[in-house]
Amino acid sequence: MTGALRPPSLRWAEIVAVGSELLVPPRLDTNSLFITERLNEYGIEVRAKAIVGDRREDLEAVVRAALARTELVVVCGGLGPTDDDLTRDAVSAVTGRTLREQSGILDGIRQRFAARGARMPEINRRQAMVPEGADVIPNGLGTAPGLWLEHEGRVLLLLPGPPAELKPMVERVVAERLAPRAGGGRLHRRVLRICGRTESEVDERAAPVYSRWVIGPLPVSTTVLTSPAQVELHLSVRAASAAEAHARLEAAAADMACLFGADLFSMDGRVLEEVVGQLLRDRGWHIGVAESCTGGLISGRLTEVPGSSDYVGFNAVCYSNQAKASVLGVPPALLAGHGAVSEPVALAMADGIRQRAAAEIGIGVTGIAGPAGGSDDKPLGTVVIGVTTADVRVVRTYRFPAGRARVRQFAAQIALDLARRVLLGVEAGRAFVFMPGTGVRR
Amino acid sequence: MTGALRPPSLRWAEIVAVGSELLVPPRLDTNSLFITERLNEYGIEVRAKAIVGDRREDLEAVVRAALARTELVVVCGGLGPTDDDLTRDAVSAVTGRTLREQSGILDGIRQRFAARGARMPEINRRQAMVPEGADVIPNGLGTAPGLWLEHEGRVLLLLPGPPAELKPMVERVVAERLAPRAGGGRLHRRVLRICGRTESEVDERAAPVYSRWVIGPLPVSTTVLTSPAQVELHLSVRAASAAEAHARLEAAAADMACLFGADLFSMDGRVLEEVVGQLLRDRGWHIGVAESCTGGLISGRLTEVPGSSDYVGFNAVCYSNQAKASVLGVPPALLAGHGAVSEPVALAMADGIRQRAAAEIGIGVTGIAGPAGGSDDKPLGTVVIGVTTADVRVVRTYRFPAGRARVRQFAAQIALDLARRVLLGVEAGRAFVFMPGTGVRR
Repeated sequence: MTGALRPPSLRWAEIVAVGSELLVPPRLDTNSLFITERLNEYGIEVRAKAIVGDRREDLEAVVRAALARTELVVVCGGLGPTDDDLTRDAVSAVTGRTLREQSGILDGIRQRFAARGARMPEINRRQAMVPEGADVIPNGLGTAPGLWLEHEGRVLLLLPGPPAELKPMVERVVAERLAPRAGGGRLHRRVLRICGRTESEVDERAAPVYSRWVIGPLPVSTTVLTSPAQVELHLSVRAASAAEAHARLEAAAADMACLFGADLFSMDGRVLEEVVGQLLRDRGWHIGVAESCTGGLISGRLTEVPGSSDYVGFNAVCYSNQAKASVLGVPPALLAGHGAVSEPVALAMADGIRQRAAAEIGIGVTGIAGPAGGSDDKPLGTVVIGVTTADVRVVRTYRFPAGRARVRQFAAQIALDLARRVLLGVEAGRAFVFMPGTGVRR
Repeated sequence: MTGALRPPSLRWAEIVAVGSELLVPPRLDTNSLFITERLNEYGIEVRAKAIVGDRREDLEAVVRAALARTELVVVCGGLGPTDDDLTRDAVSAVTGRTLREQSGILDGIRQRFAARGARMPEINRRQAMVPEGADVIPNGLGTAPGLWLEHEGRVLLLLPGPPAELKPMVERVVAERLAPRAGGGRLHRRVLRICGRTESEVDERAAPVYSRWVIGPLPVSTTVLTSPAQVELHLSVRAASAAEAHARLEAAAADMACLFGADLFSMDGRVLEEVVGQLLRDRGWHIGVAESCTGGLISGRLTEVPGSSDYVGFNAVCYSNQAKASVLGVPPALLAGHGAVSEPVALAMADGIRQRAAAEIGIGVTGIAGPAGGSDDKPLGTVVIGVTTADVRVVRTYRFPAGRARVRQFAAQIALDLARRVLLGVEAGRAFVFMPGTGVRR
């Protein structure tokens, strides 16, 4: 052990975002998500976050409080050249370290302006002011350098607010200065994705397993996130050895696979359209999608995947009955007899697009997204999804929770999932199941 | 004046979100955005926000600091029944007010469980504990009631964390308790949207106008948000009179319309697909979209708008050359001679879908979204967009910034905008313009 020569290891951090514009509703502080992710990877956990406006007394109070309890305090923003950029002054006041102009920084800023044929405005001199003892972190993309200041056993890291400038600086600081001091081992993550269960169903079944995971030398923590017809489990484990972490996460993923079977569609972070794409590629198949109420969402998701032109040739959005008949060959008698939102029509749409696109598997989606168009018989949120191949014909009627955008998102996700199940061969003649909570019947 | 009988008016607030799960990267604290929006409407501004984990000392420190400087402190979360739900205890400690069990709350919680045929677990008793002097805000959707506590001239508002429970409670509290005490007049907003200018172009031109807006009795503040091929200006004005605020925002919007002409496509918060939909509806026209690289994004956006079945009948995603030929009737010689990503093919796609969909206006989009498929001649990000009607034929070649998802988003937005300009009659023979910064040539 080198003992006193080695700086103390960092385990906890706080993040302070500075700027009145961040306190107005449409703005999100996404910098702190990025920083948290990078810190977590190196085993540094975030203990608290704050957003403060451009008021010096608030900024000083928040930085002082953070420094009092946490080893690493990251302050984002407030390093610009104007009067309301207060981070340098606040840090100087909190630490009692005088600001001094650094000529090297000043020259760099002057050169940035000169390169654009401009003279540096006098206010930009502020950006060359550095608290005594701070290291300067160069900024290749803007005028504000970052600052690294060690103070009474704590570290203060000051970063510029624009994400394009902040991100590369964070990458560099993490690799060069934080990684060597991360004491707790790196954090390793795994994302699992489930379709066909509600959050409470997943929770009820998995909770006893989670509680076993947190016992033992490499505890696994879990965060659950839900979106329409999808439950995501974010597993993480802190370990010095990547191999051990990998093995632990692999075992945890296997536990979930055992609980959820084919409902667990991704154990490696892939999204549903990637999983479906891979199944198509494995078989050398093409897919055709005929969408009515989803209006192109399914096609949009499938083609978001690089290389999807290998298995997508033609998809159709057939909103009108006329297009269902003329483009997909749905018999007008079927439309008239059963209505556009019906199981025979969904199957005929799937068959039609399969034929028109010369694809081996077809999806047909027809439903009532709202806000108008519902009836007693077929209320808003009713969606019929058919998937057909040369050998399999599956059709399901769903009732999704209200709201046009939500109905469309549920329908797109469930349609892709039904295609996945048909491709896997697990969905040949499954009985209807009512999914409580979501109103999903499948 | 009723003087001392009237409680002090509220002008500033702080929001504290409680929960270790909010400090893990994928989670966003969206509650605070919702609360901020509602408070702002009543002229209450948010001075700072904090997120703290489930540590009692951190929570106490943050609540104590917020109470010391701000009149209204809203704490979200930490009201559940388990040991790591610490908000009640922390508030009791900070204010010195003892927690007492309220039998009314306890009965309500017991009834909630009984309604599901279950017995209340003993731990849920915690949720019936109330600091002395606090008013209980009933929660119809969960077991944790909200609490309103006036303490030494400040207000502490405690809300449950789940958004579904928090939101209706906020609406009620804002209407019943905060609106009468909002002293600064309500905040009125207006969102303007621009396509065809970069953020810096907008800023350069508009900055002198912004600075005039902040002078005078009703200053207008501006926040700028950008997304692919769109700049949003969020204007807000604080005024006691809705009519005065409306007139001020109307004048400000007119200033911008004067600066940006047809590039300013929305002055009332509508998104581009709504504006295009309205133009189609006004003319009684249908639109047909033939997408290659955008893969359904344009169709998905157009059909997101309620009632879009009035003007959308059939859209096609033609990824393969074969589909471009067989579905849209693009001559194979054109595809072979010019390549799929070319101006003649984009125009033929627009004409083809217009004919197949029996629409009055057609859009054809073909491009190279990447990551593969680029060449020296047609690098990644090259997208050709054609829009045709019986009378007008417009085609443009663009080079969008790299990244598959970004290229597709840029292309979808610009295609909808080009259709808008053709519908308005402002885009008949406009010269190509290179948009610096984005690499957009149009």
